[in-house]
Amino acid sequence: MKVDVITVTDLCQNILHAHGVGPASARIQIDLLVEAQLRGYASHGLLRLRRIVERIEAGVTAPNATGLHTWYGPAQLIVDGERGLGPVVAMNALSVVQQRARDSGIAMAAIHNSNHIGMLAWYGEYVAADGLMLIAATTSEALVHPWGGRRAMVGTNPLCIAVPAQPEPLVLDMATSLVSMGKIHDYANRGATLPEGWALDVDGNPTTDAVAAKAGSLAPFGGAKGYALGLALEVLVTSLAGSAIGANVAGTLDSERVCNKGDLFIVIAPQQGSSVAELVSTYLNELRQSDPAEPGSPVTVPGDRARRTRARGNAEGLELEEELWRDLLALGRSAEQSRTSA
Amino acid sequence: MKVDVITVTDLCQNILHAHGVGPASARIQIDLLVEAQLRGYASHGLLRLRRIVERIEAGVTAPNATGLHTWYGPAQLIVDGERGLGPVVAMNALSVVQQRARDSGIAMAAIHNSNHIGMLAWYGEYVAADGLMLIAATTSEALVHPWGGRRAMVGTNPLCIAVPAQPEPLVLDMATSLVSMGKIHDYANRGATLPEGWALDVDGNPTTDAVAAKAGSLAPFGGAKGYALGLALEVLVTSLAGSAIGANVAGTLDSERVCNKGDLFIVIAPQQGSSVAELVSTYLNELRQSDPAEPGSPVTVPGDRARRTRARGNAEGLELEEELWRDLLALGRSAEQSRTSA
Repeated sequence: MKVDVITVTDLCQNILHAHGVGPASARIQIDLLVEAQLRGYASHGLLRLRRIVERIEAGVTAPNATGLHTWYGPAQLIVDGERGLGPVVAMNALSVVQQRARDSGIAMAAIHNSNHIGMLAWYGEYVAADGLMLIAATTSEALVHPWGGRRAMVGTNPLCIAVPAQPEPLVLDMATSLVSMGKIHDYANRGATLPEGWALDVDGNPTTDAVAAKAGSLAPFGGAKGYALGLALEVLVTSLAGSAIGANVAGTLDSERVCNKGDLFIVIAPQQGSSVAELVSTYLNELRQSDPAEPGSPVTVPGDRARRTRARGNAEGLELEEELWRDLLALGRSAEQSRTSA
Repeated sequence: MKVDVITVTDLCQNILHAHGVGPASARIQIDLLVEAQLRGYASHGLLRLRRIVERIEAGVTAPNATGLHTWYGPAQLIVDGERGLGPVVAMNALSVVQQRARDSGIAMAAIHNSNHIGMLAWYGEYVAADGLMLIAATTSEALVHPWGGRRAMVGTNPLCIAVPAQPEPLVLDMATSLVSMGKIHDYANRGATLPEGWALDVDGNPTTDAVAAKAGSLAPFGGAKGYALGLALEVLVTSLAGSAIGANVAGTLDSERVCNKGDLFIVIAPQQGSSVAELVSTYLNELRQSDPAEPGSPVTVPGDRARRTRARGNAEGLELEEELWRDLLALGRSAEQSRTSA
């Protein structure tokens, strides 16, 4: 079903207000979820709101923490997220890191003790719109098996690279797993068979049974190389953020445990002039206009497709599963009741 | 055949001396080539020396340039490589960037107008041995087709991530193409058929004919994600270094054209204490010891296999194709003659 973006945004912000989240923080958190939903990343969209609310109720998320900042030199910020909302802590760090990047040429933040930061492309679009570049990574629960291994030991560890360009920036945002665990759950719910090579069962043997895969592990994307990349990001982020690693990571998929993953944001202020910026924009446009393998399926630049889906959602309304909309309405009603009784 | 490492190193350094390269620069360039050869990366090994010599003779490589440095803020270095030897310019930049990373927390160098920098793992090992982290990328001639495209428009753009650990660091070094063009040439030389999905012909159609693939393009690794990563690196490096982009990149595979690709080095000084370092080392060792999919084929951490091959080469001698050794001897003789006649 389609729901008006402003209606759903107001409803969800009010749900967070009722749970003690201040207006500025609620705006950031809900904007992130709505933007993910608008871009077609339902797994990072509004279905996350119930978990966020449950985590505040369980005391593992602090509704108004913004993070304690410690600088090492002018360009390295270490953030204790104080169990705050992931995007609130991250945006609070980014705002100072962006300024430091302008002053120092490059600057970074490594964050621990903060909650799920959601779709990385949201940060990439934000930083690139400011004329800066972003390299970002975040760790997650261990769901991926090492290449040539049997057990889930590596996170789905997404990587974001954003570079300003005209008319649109390049915004890469990709998990280093071949598919998401959400997709495996979707196959299991539909009773569908998995393609070969997607997953191992709990004993580490290849399986096409989605129910068996749920208890097992996901393949990395791109074989040995994708494994190496996901592992490198796991180790890089943990080493800088002082967060948990491997199978000890928790708190982005449950409602009870303190979230102990890590986030890394590196911001760079480009110093080359407008001719280099034009060269890059021209190149990206040449790619978009280049001869496609399949007529009618143009070559895309990372970020293009999500941005088109977003524009459609804004024009036609946000696409929501009816069950999710009913759940959001229920969350809204109980928020209203707690407010009235308070 | 096997050749003693010191013998081949001396021979190759003398070849560079005879072409006007100073002792310190020759040591850096030859160490990089020998290390690549020792690690089993023959395509980045000593076969590159003839091209380096030819490029000096053609005047497109300056044998003693070390690069002009311009700082933007305390942490961003822009380097004009002055057509110098790639590893000489890169190491000269890295030495100051490493110090700035210690002072600032993070620092970077973006390099243009410099020659092929070779195997990125060499820099990763070097920086990690100093207790620092490295993220490095370099662009290359456009050999890779966009996912869903037909023409070679993206470089093979390797990525390196190095993180210190005990007993060995993690050192990721991977091209973003599925295979190297060197491998395609090898199949063509042997008259062998390519596996499906490796390459397109010059018209952009899938081919298993290695000769047709040589004139065509390579697939990115990992499908759409690998394409997105390679492209993001192309755009990131070019935007920062002010280097050439896409099909305009030249000078790493020929002996006549000024090399116009770009290099990016980001160095980070970790601020977390020894307990985090131990956590990461323990995790990497758990991965190495985890249950393998194939008995006898242990799970590896990026860098492990190359390091083992290197140790064997150092102990047993450097593995060289006889033709390459004869070519190096010939280069050595003509260097000796030019020295005598000078």
